Amino acid sequence: MKIGDRNYQTIWLDENDPQTVCVIDQQRLPFFFETKKLHTVDEVFEAIESMTVRGAPLIGATGAFGIYLATLEITSHTDIHDHLTNAARYLISCRPTAVNLSWAVNYVTEKINKDSSSAPPSETALKAAMEICEQEKEYCRKIGEHGLKLIEELGEIKGGRPVNILTHCNAGWLATIDYGTATAPIYLAHDKGIPLHVWVDETRPRNQGSRLTAWELGQHGVPHTLISDNTGGHLMQQKLVDIVFTGSDRTTATGDVANKIGTYLKALAANDNNVPFYVLLPSTSIDFGIRDGLKEIAIEERDPEEVTFVSGLADGRLQSVRICPESTLAANYGFDITPARLITGLITERGICGATETEIREMFSDKFI
Amino acid sequence: MKIGDRNYQTIWLDENDPQTVCVIDQQRLPFFFETKKLHTVDEVFEAIESMTVRGAPLIGATGAFGIYLATLEITSHTDIHDHLTNAARYLISCRPTAVNLSWAVNYVTEKINKDSSSAPPSETALKAAMEICEQEKEYCRKIGEHGLKLIEELGEIKGGRPVNILTHCNAGWLATIDYGTATAPIYLAHDKGIPLHVWVDETRPRNQGSRLTAWELGQHGVPHTLISDNTGGHLMQQKLVDIVFTGSDRTTATGDVANKIGTYLKALAANDNNVPFYVLLPSTSIDFGIRDGLKEIAIEERDPEEVTFVSGLADGRLQSVRICPESTLAANYGFDITPARLITGLITERGICGATETEIREMFSDKFI
Repeated sequence: MKIGDRNYQTIWLDENDPQTVCVIDQQRLPFFFETKKLHTVDEVFEAIESMTVRGAPLIGATGAFGIYLATLEITSHTDIHDHLTNAARYLISCRPTAVNLSWAVNYVTEKINKDSSSAPPSETALKAAMEICEQEKEYCRKIGEHGLKLIEELGEIKGGRPVNILTHCNAGWLATIDYGTATAPIYLAHDKGIPLHVWVDETRPRNQGSRLTAWELGQHGVPHTLISDNTGGHLMQQKLVDIVFTGSDRTTATGDVANKIGTYLKALAANDNNVPFYVLLPSTSIDFGIRDGLKEIAIEERDPEEVTFVSGLADGRLQSVRICPESTLAANYGFDITPARLITGLITERGICGATETEIREMFSDKFI
Repeated sequence: MKIGDRNYQTIWLDENDPQTVCVIDQQRLPFFFETKKLHTVDEVFEAIESMTVRGAPLIGATGAFGIYLATLEITSHTDIHDHLTNAARYLISCRPTAVNLSWAVNYVTEKINKDSSSAPPSETALKAAMEICEQEKEYCRKIGEHGLKLIEELGEIKGGRPVNILTHCNAGWLATIDYGTATAPIYLAHDKGIPLHVWVDETRPRNQGSRLTAWELGQHGVPHTLISDNTGGHLMQQKLVDIVFTGSDRTTATGDVANKIGTYLKALAANDNNVPFYVLLPSTSIDFGIRDGLKEIAIEERDPEEVTFVSGLADGRLQSVRICPESTLAANYGFDITPARLITGLITERGICGATETEIREMFSDKFI
C-alpha cells in the first residue's frame, strides 16, 4: 500500500544486501516512519516480541525469514537439522497465540529438511519465505474481493449514505504483507467509490487501532473516526454500525476465533443488535487441529506496564505517561476468544463460510487431516 | 473515607469561610491531592464541566451548593425568583445525562421558593444542600449494607478464596459524598475481613478507573488489579469474575441504566457468562418520569481530545500524549444504556430489587406521581 507516494510492503529483502531483512518499525508509527534491518534469528525474535512487527500473517512471514537468517549461520561444522530445529522452536516460543508463526516457521524448516536438490539451505529457505509472502498477499487480495460483495450489498441498501464499518485492533495491511485482512475489502470498496466510513477502536492497551489502523486508513484517504473501546456497543444500539470486520490470530476448526482482547465484547454487542459480525482471515490462521477455542488456545499475557502506561507523542517525541497510582498492579491478557455462535461468517481467500465445523470442512476439506 | 490518616468527604464548606465551598480536585488525582475553593455559580459550573468533580451523586450535591452560592449574590435589587431560576437552568445545562444534577438543583431552589419563614434564602439553601449531602451519605451507607449480603453469600460459596468483583468507571466515594455506591459494599466487606479482589476497568477515555478507583481502593487497602476495558469478557469466560458492581448516572422507572460508556458491553458479557450484574444507586439517580432509556436519556458528547490524547504522569508532572495521527478525528460519547433485561438487580438505599417497573414501583411507590 502507499505511504505518501511510495508503495510499501511490511517486510522485504534489502535490495543492496540479500542477507538482511527489512521491516517497518510499527512501534514508532504513526509518529515516525522508520524501517529496521534484521540480520540474525535473535533480531527477528526481538522484533516479533517487541511488536516491531505484529499481526498474525506478518508474524508468520517474519518467522519464515527468521529461518532464512538461521540458514545463513550454517557453517561446515553445523548439524543443520539440530540448528534449524532449535531456531524454529525458539522463534515459535516468541508469541503463543497466533498460529501463523508456527505454521510459517515449520513450513520453511520442512522445505529445507525435505529438499533433495543440491541447493544450499539458504536458497531453499529464502524461496519458501518469499512464497509465504506472495501467498499471504494473494490471500488478502482474495479476502478483499469476497468481502467487497458484502459492502456493495450494504451500499445498495443504504442508497448513497456511507456504509459504517466497525473494526477492532489493526487487521490492516500493516498486520499482513499487503492489503490487510479486515481492511482489504474496505480499500477495494473505497477505491470503487462506494461511500463508507470506519469506526476505529482505539484498542488498549497497545492502541493498534489509534496508532496503526487510523494511520493506514488516513494514508489511503478512507473516512474514519477513532473511538474508545467502550463505545462500540452504544454505536450499535444507535444503529450507527452496519457491519463489523475483525481479523483473527487463530481460528479453530469449529469457528471459534482468538483475536485481540475485546473482540468478544464487540461480537456480543453485534449479536445483541443484529449487526453482522465477520472475521476476515487467511486459512493460514486456521488451526485445523483444534476444536475448542476457550480450552485449547493459549492466551498470551504481556507486560503489565502496557496497561499502567500509555505512550504517544508529546513535544515531538514518543513519551510514556503513567495513568494510575505508582503502586497499582495490572493484568494484561493479549487476546480473547469469540465463540463461533457469535460470528456471522468467516471471510477467507476461498470465499465466505459460516463459522461452523461443517462449513469450514466443506471449504477446506484438503486441509483437514 | 481516609486519605492517609485524615478523613475526607468530597465536598464541604470551608470552616474559616462559610461562603466558600471546597472540593477535591479530581482532575489532579491520583498524582496530586489538591483541593479547590468555589466561590461563585460560574466556578461551580466550571468545576462540574471540567470534571474537577464528577459522579452523579457528587454532581448533584455540587449543583445544590451552586444554588447556595447563587443566593449569596442576591442584593436588595435582585428579583430572587428570576435570579435563582436562571442559576438553576445554567447549572442543570452543564451535564445532561446524570439526573441527580437537576434533581438536587431543583430541590434547593424549591426549598427557597416555598420557604415561608423569614430566614434569608442563603440560610435555606445551605440547609438544603447540607441535607442533600447527609442524605446521599446515608443512602450510600445503606447501599453498602444491602450489597454486603451478596458479597457475604459469595464469600461462603468460595470458602475462603477471594470474591472477585469487577467494576467499571468510578462509582466510589469520590463519585459521591462518602462511601461510594458500587464501592460501599466492597469497603464494608473488606473491613469485615471477607477476602475479596476487585478488577478495575481503566475506563477510557478519561480513565476514572485507573486514576480514581484504583487510588481509592489502594488508600483503603482493598486488593485490586487494573485491566484495560477490553478485558472483562475474557475474565468472565475464564470464571475469574464472581459479580459485577457498577454505578448509574440515570435509571429509568423500568430499570434501564445510563452509566459510563462501556457498561453495556460488560453487562452483555456478564449475561453471556451467567455472572450476576448489579447496579448500585441511590434513588436520587432514578428518573421516575421516563420509561425507555435508549429513547429518553440524552447521551453527552464530550471533547474528542479526551479520546485522541491520554494524560498521566511523566517526569513528575501531569502530561498529555497524543495516541493517533494529528489529523485523526474522534467521537466521544460519555455514556451508554444498559437495558434492564441484562441487569440482575438494583441495589438501592431501600434494598435490592429487580430491574423491572413492577419491582421499582413496589420499592418506591411514594416516588411515582
